[in-house]
Amino acid sequence: MKDLLTVGTVAFDSIETPYGKAEMVIGGACTYASYAASYFTDRINLVSIVGDDFPQSEMEALEDKGVNLKGLEIKENAKSFFWAGKYHENMNKRDTLTTDLNVLDDFNPVLPEEYKSSKYVMLGNITPELQTQVLDQLDGTQRLIAMDTMNFWMDIAWDELMNVISRVDILTINDEEARQMSGEYSLVKAAYKIHELGPKFLVIKKGEHGALLFADDQIFYAPALPLSQVYDPTGAGDTFAGGFMGYLAKTDDVSFDNMKRAVIHGSAMASFCVEEFSIKRLKYLRDDEVVSRVRKFKQLTHFDL
Amino acid sequence: MKDLLTVGTVAFDSIETPYGKAEMVIGGACTYASYAASYFTDRINLVSIVGDDFPQSEMEALEDKGVNLKGLEIKENAKSFFWAGKYHENMNKRDTLTTDLNVLDDFNPVLPEEYKSSKYVMLGNITPELQTQVLDQLDGTQRLIAMDTMNFWMDIAWDELMNVISRVDILTINDEEARQMSGEYSLVKAAYKIHELGPKFLVIKKGEHGALLFADDQIFYAPALPLSQVYDPTGAGDTFAGGFMGYLAKTDDVSFDNMKRAVIHGSAMASFCVEEFSIKRLKYLRDDEVVSRVRKFKQLTHFDL
Repeated sequence: MKDLLTVGTVAFDSIETPYGKAEMVIGGACTYASYAASYFTDRINLVSIVGDDFPQSEMEALEDKGVNLKGLEIKENAKSFFWAGKYHENMNKRDTLTTDLNVLDDFNPVLPEEYKSSKYVMLGNITPELQTQVLDQLDGTQRLIAMDTMNFWMDIAWDELMNVISRVDILTINDEEARQMSGEYSLVKAAYKIHELGPKFLVIKKGEHGALLFADDQIFYAPALPLSQVYDPTGAGDTFAGGFMGYLAKTDDVSFDNMKRAVIHGSAMASFCVEEFSIKRLKYLRDDEVVSRVRKFKQLTHFDL
Repeated sequence: MKDLLTVGTVAFDSIETPYGKAEMVIGGACTYASYAASYFTDRINLVSIVGDDFPQSEMEALEDKGVNLKGLEIKENAKSFFWAGKYHENMNKRDTLTTDLNVLDDFNPVLPEEYKSSKYVMLGNITPELQTQVLDQLDGTQRLIAMDTMNFWMDIAWDELMNVISRVDILTINDEEARQMSGEYSLVKAAYKIHELGPKFLVIKKGEHGALLFADDQIFYAPALPLSQVYDPTGAGDTFAGGFMGYLAKTDDVSFDNMKRAVIHGSAMASFCVEEFSIKRLKYLRDDEVVSRVRKFKQLTHFDL
């Protein structure tokens, strides 16, 4: 088992879906990723920023899951990042209603000394500049660095984005973003072009349609688990990434076969995430629930020839 | 190996995709399904209607593949069914430009005596009334009857559609149609409701996102093979259905495990279909190409825990 560094937002969300509403609940990519990873490792080094409005109890809940909060800056007299969104019936689509950066405007990630040798790194979707700043502080002994990003940075910070992408091992983005980044509609061609930008591995997240892992000439397709009810897709992609990297940090094996297992574990965590609003489901899972959910993916996809 | 009855359109298509155009090429659900099935069985009983404009050479090509054309009515002084469509870059979406029913207006499927005991039946997407007419002519010894349909019949012939659905074993429709038919967004809930309408099995076709097989409490998810280039998605769903039913007719085994294999074989045939315009790719496949394509699906989805 190796340390996993998670960098990104810890925040409040207000969410509306066809199945209900949740106001000012816990959100943030780094929160979701850290909870998901916590089912595989208790050596998680979190880097983020919150205001003094962020509940102490929520920080303790993260610490109880083995998340090191030395890298969590708490800014006095400031508010935490806030996002509000509304989902359509097709929950692959959503409208952003509010984005209040608040403390995020002053985010200046500084890695505590003990974080710098983390072997596994998950850079959440923040500005490419801040992602670079994190990479610059690492000691160079990392085994695997993954990053997420979004179309917004492709539109306004292409060069900075290309710079950070050239320095990571895995890019985890959604299908629309992969198409925008590569200018290719075919995801196979998109993967080929994105490999050329630097990352050896590419994970394309397709929401209810699952996830694809690309490495050189190999492709792995993990479906999403068909569910009776999806209450809230917020954080599913971050949960996937956290489960994926948590599993890799636990097993410390970056072979393609183990990456496939990591994709399945990430998909299993994402399937839990969407069954409740916010982090409700992710907070209190039992290990046997995780194991049995992972097995469901095998039943779902395996066949004998 | 048992006989497979295929019923549906044999037609001309004009197709435009972002990668090219094809004018007045061979199309029709029954054509695609029969070609796909022909790689698994040479006992295919086709029922359809064409005008005297349909090329003799194309009929001979079907016969060469083991397709019995006794049930193909050739109407003098009439034109074959014609469909023209244009695909967007997202090839899961298309616009219909022209639909000339022509001979289809007079289609009155009459089963040759030798067809009536076909153990496997694939009812392509025609009016529910005609589908019923076919069912009424069967001798009642069928092992598995599958049908396709579309939103159009849900809109204008709901009662007739429900009647025919109650008489079949498998419904093969796309995700949008499953949602419309059931009034449920979740495909798990949709499957539950559709089972209650009659079919023991449901196949939901999701285009580039693969296909789902539902039976009671079991679900199987076959991805679509990620391809570098999709030239023409026309007929992919029909090709899937033909490969699926052809494999079942060949193996004569309707266990869930064998249905999973059938879904994979259908998916493999669909992956060939889209690699060329019209039936070009489906016409001249070698058996070893089919076998190796099927194996690719195993590499794509299997993992060890």
